[in-house]
Amino acid sequence: MKLTVKAKALKNIPWQNKPYGSKNPNEVIWRYDRNPVIARDLTATSNSIFNSAVVPFEGAFAGVFRCDDRARHMDIHAGFSPDGYKWTIDPKPINFIAKDPDVKGSWYKYDPRVVLLEDKYWVQWCNGYHGPTIGLGYTTDFKKFHQIESAFLPFNRNGVLFPRKIKGKYAMLSRPSDNGHTPFGDIFFSESPDMIYWGKHRHVMRPAGGWESTKIGPGPAPIETSEGWLLFYHGVLTSCNGFVYSWGACLLDIDQPWKVIHRGKYYLMSPQKPYELAGDVPNVTFPCAALVDGPTKRVAIYYGAADTVTGLAFGYIDEIIDFIKKNPR
Amino acid sequence: MKLTVKAKALKNIPWQNKPYGSKNPNEVIWRYDRNPVIARDLTATSNSIFNSAVVPFEGAFAGVFRCDDRARHMDIHAGFSPDGYKWTIDPKPINFIAKDPDVKGSWYKYDPRVVLLEDKYWVQWCNGYHGPTIGLGYTTDFKKFHQIESAFLPFNRNGVLFPRKIKGKYAMLSRPSDNGHTPFGDIFFSESPDMIYWGKHRHVMRPAGGWESTKIGPGPAPIETSEGWLLFYHGVLTSCNGFVYSWGACLLDIDQPWKVIHRGKYYLMSPQKPYELAGDVPNVTFPCAALVDGPTKRVAIYYGAADTVTGLAFGYIDEIIDFIKKNPR
Amino acid sequence: MKLTVKAKALKNIPWQNKPYGSKNPNEVIWRYDRNPVIARDLTATSNSIFNSAVVPFEGAFAGVFRCDDRARHMDIHAGFSPDGYKWTIDPKPINFIAKDPDVKGSWYKYDPRVVLLEDKYWVQWCNGYHGPTIGLGYTTDFKKFHQIESAFLPFNRNGVLFPRKIKGKYAMLSRPSDNGHTPFGDIFFSESPDMIYWGKHRHVMRPAGGWESTKIGPGPAPIETSEGWLLFYHGVLTSCNGFVYSWGACLLDIDQPWKVIHRGKYYLMSPQKPYELAGDVPNVTFPCAALVDGPTKRVAIYYGAADTVTGLAFGYIDEIIDFIKKNPR
Amino acid sequence: MKLTVKAKALKNIPWQNKPYGSKNPNEVIWRYDRNPVIARDLTATSNSIFNSAVVPFEGAFAGVFRCDDRARHMDIHAGFSPDGYKWTIDPKPINFIAKDPDVKGSWYKYDPRVVLLEDKYWVQWCNGYHGPTIGLGYTTDFKKFHQIESAFLPFNRNGVLFPRKIKGKYAMLSRPSDNGHTPFGDIFFSESPDMIYWGKHRHVMRPAGGWESTKIGPGPAPIETSEGWLLFYHGVLTSCNGFVYSWGACLLDIDQPWKVIHRGKYYLMSPQKPYELAGDVPNVTFPCAALVDGPTKRVAIYYGAADTVTGLAFGYIDEIIDFIKKNPR
Amino acid sequence: MKLTVKAKALKNIPWQNKPYGSKNPNEVIWRYDRNPVIARDLTATSNSIFNSAVVPFEGAFAGVFRCDDRARHMDIHAGFSPDGYKWTIDPKPINFIAKDPDVKGSWYKYDPRVVLLEDKYWVQWCNGYHGPTIGLGYTTDFKKFHQIESAFLPFNRNGVLFPRKIKGKYAMLSRPSDNGHTPFGDIFFSESPDMIYWGKHRHVMRPAGGWESTKIGPGPAPIETSEGWLLFYHGVLTSCNGFVYSWGACLLDIDQPWKVIHRGKYYLMSPQKPYELAGDVPNVTFPCAALVDGPTKRVAIYYGAADTVTGLAFGYIDEIIDFIKKNPR
Amino acid sequence: MKLTVKAKALKNIPWQNKPYGSKNPNEVIWRYDRNPVIARDLTATSNSIFNSAVVPFEGAFAGVFRCDDRARHMDIHAGFSPDGYKWTIDPKPINFIAKDPDVKGSWYKYDPRVVLLEDKYWVQWCNGYHGPTIGLGYTTDFKKFHQIESAFLPFNRNGVLFPRKIKGKYAMLSRPSDNGHTPFGDIFFSESPDMIYWGKHRHVMRPAGGWESTKIGPGPAPIETSEGWLLFYHGVLTSCNGFVYSWGACLLDIDQPWKVIHRGKYYLMSPQKPYELAGDVPNVTFPCAALVDGPTKRVAIYYGAADTVTGLAFGYIDEIIDFIKKNPR
Repeated sequence: MKLTVKAKALKNIPWQNKPYGSKNPNEVIWRYDRNPVIARDLTATSNSIFNSAVVPFEGAFAGVFRCDDRARHMDIHAGFSPDGYKWTIDPKPINFIAKDPDVKGSWYKYDPRVVLLEDKYWVQWCNGYHGPTIGLGYTTDFKKFHQIESAFLPFNRNGVLFPRKIKGKYAMLSRPSDNGHTPFGDIFFSESPDMIYWGKHRHVMRPAGGWESTKIGPGPAPIETSEGWLLFYHGVLTSCNGFVYSWGACLLDIDQPWKVIHRGKYYLMSPQKPYELAGDVPNVTFPCAALVDGPTKRVAIYYGAADTVTGLAFGYIDEIIDFIKKNPR
Repeated sequence: MKLTVKAKALKNIPWQNKPYGSKNPNEVIWRYDRNPVIARDLTATSNSIFNSAVVPFEGAFAGVFRCDDRARHMDIHAGFSPDGYKWTIDPKPINFIAKDPDVKGSWYKYDPRVVLLEDKYWVQWCNGYHGPTIGLGYTTDFKKFHQIESAFLPFNRNGVLFPRKIKGKYAMLSRPSDNGHTPFGDIFFSESPDMIYWGKHRHVMRPAGGWESTKIGPGPAPIETSEGWLLFYHGVLTSCNGFVYSWGACLLDIDQPWKVIHRGKYYLMSPQKPYELAGDVPNVTFPCAALVDGPTKRVAIYYGAADTVTGLAFGYIDEIIDFIKKNPR
Repeated sequence: MKLTVKAKALKNIPWQNKPYGSKNPNEVIWRYDRNPVIARDLTATSNSIFNSAVVPFEGAFAGVFRCDDRARHMDIHAGFSPDGYKWTIDPKPINFIAKDPDVKGSWYKYDPRVVLLEDKYWVQWCNGYHGPTIGLGYTTDFKKFHQIESAFLPFNRNGVLFPRKIKGKYAMLSRPSDNGHTPFGDIFFSESPDMIYWGKHRHVMRPAGGWESTKIGPGPAPIETSEGWLLFYHGVLTSCNGFVYSWGACLLDIDQPWKVIHRGKYYLMSPQKPYELAGDVPNVTFPCAALVDGPTKRVAIYYGAADTVTGLAFGYIDEIIDFIKKNPR
Repeated sequence: MKLTVKAKALKNIPWQNKPYGSKNPNEVIWRYDRNPVIARDLTATSNSIFNSAVVPFEGAFAGVFRCDDRARHMDIHAGFSPDGYKWTIDPKPINFIAKDPDVKGSWYKYDPRVVLLEDKYWVQWCNGYHGPTIGLGYTTDFKKFHQIESAFLPFNRNGVLFPRKIKGKYAMLSRPSDNGHTPFGDIFFSESPDMIYWGKHRHVMRPAGGWESTKIGPGPAPIETSEGWLLFYHGVLTSCNGFVYSWGACLLDIDQPWKVIHRGKYYLMSPQKPYELAGDVPNVTFPCAALVDGPTKRVAIYYGAADTVTGLAFGYIDEIIDFIKKNPR
Repeated sequence: MKLTVKAKALKNIPWQNKPYGSKNPNEVIWRYDRNPVIARDLTATSNSIFNSAVVPFEGAFAGVFRCDDRARHMDIHAGFSPDGYKWTIDPKPINFIAKDPDVKGSWYKYDPRVVLLEDKYWVQWCNGYHGPTIGLGYTTDFKKFHQIESAFLPFNRNGVLFPRKIKGKYAMLSRPSDNGHTPFGDIFFSESPDMIYWGKHRHVMRPAGGWESTKIGPGPAPIETSEGWLLFYHGVLTSCNGFVYSWGACLLDIDQPWKVIHRGKYYLMSPQKPYELAGDVPNVTFPCAALVDGPTKRVAIYYGAADTVTGLAFGYIDEIIDFIKKNPR
Repeated sequence: MKLTVKAKALKNIPWQNKPYGSKNPNEVIWRYDRNPVIARDLTATSNSIFNSAVVPFEGAFAGVFRCDDRARHMDIHAGFSPDGYKWTIDPKPINFIAKDPDVKGSWYKYDPRVVLLEDKYWVQWCNGYHGPTIGLGYTTDFKKFHQIESAFLPFNRNGVLFPRKIKGKYAMLSRPSDNGHTPFGDIFFSESPDMIYWGKHRHVMRPAGGWESTKIGPGPAPIETSEGWLLFYHGVLTSCNGFVYSWGACLLDIDQPWKVIHRGKYYLMSPQKPYELAGDVPNVTFPCAALVDGPTKRVAIYYGAADTVTGLAFGYIDEIIDFIKKNPR
């Protein structure tokens, strides 16, 4: 049976074909040849721009970007692009609208995801409120942003909403953590009737060794296919000289997304290029956004590199799913 | 204005007067002179019985007890007492009723609290589900226990329900943690419309130095008074030879219990007796239950000692509140 | 089928019956009522005497004792007793005879075991040679001791010989470790044709949670029974305030002793008495020697308490084996 | 040649003869039989009283005491005693007189020493000023205390003045440390022309293994004898369950006190009594003061026990020096 | 009012104008376009040359250089340059002249600073004497060097003298530390009447988050201006993969230099170039010397890169001060 | 007397002369100018190929290679080359022949060495059997490989056989370790009559500071010369940002190879090239194989770089030995 990707057409998806000569069947993801697609100093005050979220918007593209400034303060900024390559990012952080000072107060914001859900672009990020937890907000125009209650108690990172309700409930993946450079981390599932109160937490999966032996966390919003939710996720290996962030993929059950149907043994990408190997944090590739062209099954993935710049990579969803099924863990 | 304690009369509260000669105004809590009130080997398989929860029940007393067996497996057991001193504890752990295996599955259970809320005795405990989190269940007879969804994602300990809804919502305190012997910990507040979904998380307070310099966590269910919720809480100091668990008290705002009105500078109890200084974990006093006689303002507190046995202590609620107001942090 | 213990009669085994009132079926080991049987200052220079080895010798008893002196230097000393209770221990350490300075050189010696094997009393201990490893020597009279090659490369502790050759080879259990307060530890089996060269290393068992969640190590020499080798072994749990050393038992296959036939879920003893809870290292019970009276199946176990003094405990081998079979892990 | 102790007569020195039966030649220090001489709750707010300094004063005794209050805040208090046993300690901390707020400001004060030097009683303590360092002050009446500049930059503890100038300079021993439970520590010597500026720092000695394998620090002010300065010093061993504080002695050169003439191999005291083994910090004996009766060479030593109470011990200076010479490291 | 820099003219200061196109107002420091200015293997035995000190000398330039040899032994070497770019460095370490072996003895020397003060070039460095502390010496010709007493007790690093006496006293900044890769560090001020005895220690500032969240330390000797002392200082952020060393600037009060008048929020430089990102220690930029041309306010800064090579950077002092005032912390 | 290298001629040894201009007498090792000689993705599934072993074989070359696959699983693979530069590596791991499942079972295999000893090519590697230990096997054709008993108990790495028996016994160097990123490590010697049982363990050498301050381990099989066994060994320095692996050389006694005759002070190679500084583990050079041309004394060394690729370097054995003798530790 042929795989279907349940996503609209996105004809202007940023795209390069697989480079001539790359016949290696184990390479189902390839990099943009002019990476990094976003430089660390795109804005006048930015130290680094990475781990950022991009969506189609009004025929072009918009996004929410993690920009650490030169004080190394972490915040998220709105940005626009005509083509997904050239970006204009607001040098000032997003000023969320919220009444309750306990909601609005935020030590820092980082690692945003954005998903179009019903009629709003929902933003999820790691929000500093007496420790890291999952901040939630929305926008319709990428100019005005509203912040609502954080989803969970600290300590949590990498909250990622599903792009539609599941059995009538909003659904989110996340990775509970601690208050530092957490040396552990599983992926969990939670649901909510109203985006305010969350519960029915379920364990999805734990690190499985090798490139994902220390911790794992969800990447871009899951992509709906006829075979299940395709989830890109990062995994961390602890070498004698620190963490190495790679990423791979798995398929989750459509109705009970805490059940893993297929999980690839191999990473899809690991840090291998100079801009991934060296930077503010060496050896990091960290995907946060995926643009999908449903009919052609093409996917363009934005990933943070070395916690410093943003990279772009390409693949075919059916090839990726095929790959993880052929190389199961 | 005179303080009122919003609790029923409990004429048969376990009680001893302050020992003759204890005129020290800084001692507003005194110990039962036959402590430990519950020995480590009360049941045939128990290694230790501590950090346990006791409530008035049908004119006598019932409770839920943390019993580590001789495999050092942690579980919770039901028990009964005619007088609060002599206890009969079921040698078998509580077998909670729950349909969903993800709800029922539990690696371990420990540090229970019990509170009468509406028509049920609600049990909260640290529940092992891919890490420690807050298990929730209820009983009406201390024979049949029902388990519902865990309140939060891991990692969390010391979930403590308020004894009534606040502004129409169930309310809980807890202490988010990590997956080990957590070296940090603040108290947070959360609310729920239905005991299933939880949100609107608020920070209550953080460690404040001295006896509570490493972490703090809520103890027994808060006690309602005319001046606010009286909360006993434990605090941990890290000496060169490990953690020291003492406990003190604070007053929380009645309607916005994440606001601290008064907080005592001094501990009310620290490990000083042989059964508190030595045992499976030296230097621990850890309160989990408080019996209150409203009219006389007497309180009897059950606390774990050295993670081995259960101690009992006494005080007057008005004296305690007076003490923390006179010795503010 | 009735269990047989393959050991000679030892009529003068130190012995006390189970105390009146101890009907708890989970207590198959009970303590000598005048413990500690050996005080910390039995010799003029000793800081502590513990983790020591005792054997029947010429109708009475002899042993090799770990005595830390007041410099806290660790060494092993010979000692004699008419009855197993009252001991005379040489204030000077054993001066082993060895030609090769690389064999004789030893930073420290501790935690000896002694076993009669063929015609010699073989001593095994933790030997300091550029790290801890397993020292080996023998005596026939407990006056002259010969030291031979260490069995293994560092880092190793708790080398324990079987009391006879197995399939023509000498056989030893041990616990590989690191160079500090090792936070891990499994039991391994090794064999040797000649007590010099060792190989065919096999894994026996790893920690299994609860009281033995951090590391395990063999205790006294295994006791041969008709159902397999009875092995007492210590296990360590890591609380927030450090290691807790308990001990339990398992049965190993007679011919392939790296195969575990039965393993008890519960500890047989954990630190509960004042001299076990407090001392140079709080919370330690650590068995190193067992005297056995074959016909009556009585066993008397010497164990170190709090790394300070020596305790004595009693039990019946058939009851112990019955207990671990009824309470399997 | 017979040893002379260069100290005045102190006929009313607290004293007990060595207990009948203690013929062990390795015990040259023995404890007061009614220890602890100062209880933890001598004042109404004290959690513990230990590591304190005592001197002869106007025919009786005065001292400066470390009292941690029930907030576990550390401060130093003045006290008086007619006989060295019964003490009256001011429940309020010493309020030092100092003009410069950078001098007067002090997060905490602990572990005082007091020495009569020229015409003043000089107090040295661990002073909290952006980390622990050596606070300095003086009194003539134990009522008014003046604070001067701290001697050193952080991080330092255990500053101990010599009781007279050496070659025209004030002289001090100390133990540089870090900002936590320092796992290292040597003793250094420093000198000053004016008690304000310090320099010519010299290394005295480092930990030497066994009971003093982790760190060492000076105890009471050195005692002048005809053979050199007798220094009591504490040493720390790190067991798997934490630090163990014992103490021993060495002799320093009279004119170049950074040169060690004799150093004993054995500790003089290690934690062995219940009040030394259990308390706020288990396994601590920590001497801070010594009263000396020159003609009889008797010495009475006050030491902190388990960071909770104060103990008292006795010995003869000539026996102690003889002991360390006979048992050299 | 216009800023004045109190430094002589230095017409031959190494200098490049800001690169064409760098209009970013947040870049007030720019790098030499042929960096690294000093290669790691400039001498035959050097593994690396970095964290070094340069001064104008006899119309040209001289300096003291940290050269780690291929044994990775750390020492300091004299060097000369006609232009500040091309350097000749003595392959042999400086052999300091000192009588007292306790002064001359030095395990290692690293991270030198040099300042012309009165009639001598004073050298300060991290000196190995039973731990790192602040070595002090002087030269007049960069051939003969004299070593005097170390300024402080261990453990200390980054001692930096002011270029003139302040209120009649010599003045030094430093960063107390521990004996390893210290995870904390504040800047302190000390003074001395004679360069031998030091005291009146004052706290200057502590880490303030972001790029300087773990520790901070003074860089080159402070530069006197009409608005205060301009201090360049390094700051360390701890990522999951280790320390990142950036540097920024602040202004200190002229007469009370422990008082911070202005402190910039943003770093002036962080590791971004390949030779800063990779090397013996990845992610280090560490300034140790500044050449100043008073009339033009130009400054040329030598900084260590990746603990491997030496980089050079340029700026205008008035622009830098303006920048930190406009972007205050 | 002229040095002789006891190795056959190997005319086709991979070789480049020292680059023109490299007159630095301290550079006796130089790199292949087209390094890395083996890329990380030489096989379709490999993530990295490094720390590998190469030998002359049938007029050409064969080898055993550590290939981590894209799951980051570690295993060893056979490979062939006509010239030592171009390699064909089997994409499938070696499938060792062994009967006993306890021998064959292997969690992982890494860091192989190969040595021709008598008539077989013996392979040694780090073998995962309940922890890392030394796996042993042999081949005659690099197609069929036989696995025998592991040499030692865990935990051990870097087992390296001597290329002939010494005094009638097989001989091996190794580095005992722990179960993680071991922060310590000495080299030991062991011998065996039969390659099964090992004993007579001797300490060879410990880390000596500088580039080899944390741990050391043997590299390629020792090379026999008229002056002793030439051993290349790696050494590790711990910077604030992790381990740095360099390598140097020493000479061991021919008959008692645990005796070190000469040991060089300087490293021969440290990580300095981009492919050594960045990769899966930054800052690693790790030699595992040496090809020797006896008559010309040329040596070609294969070393792992950054745990990612394989480098090649060249030198003359007599120059190397001369260098370590002239620059002794």
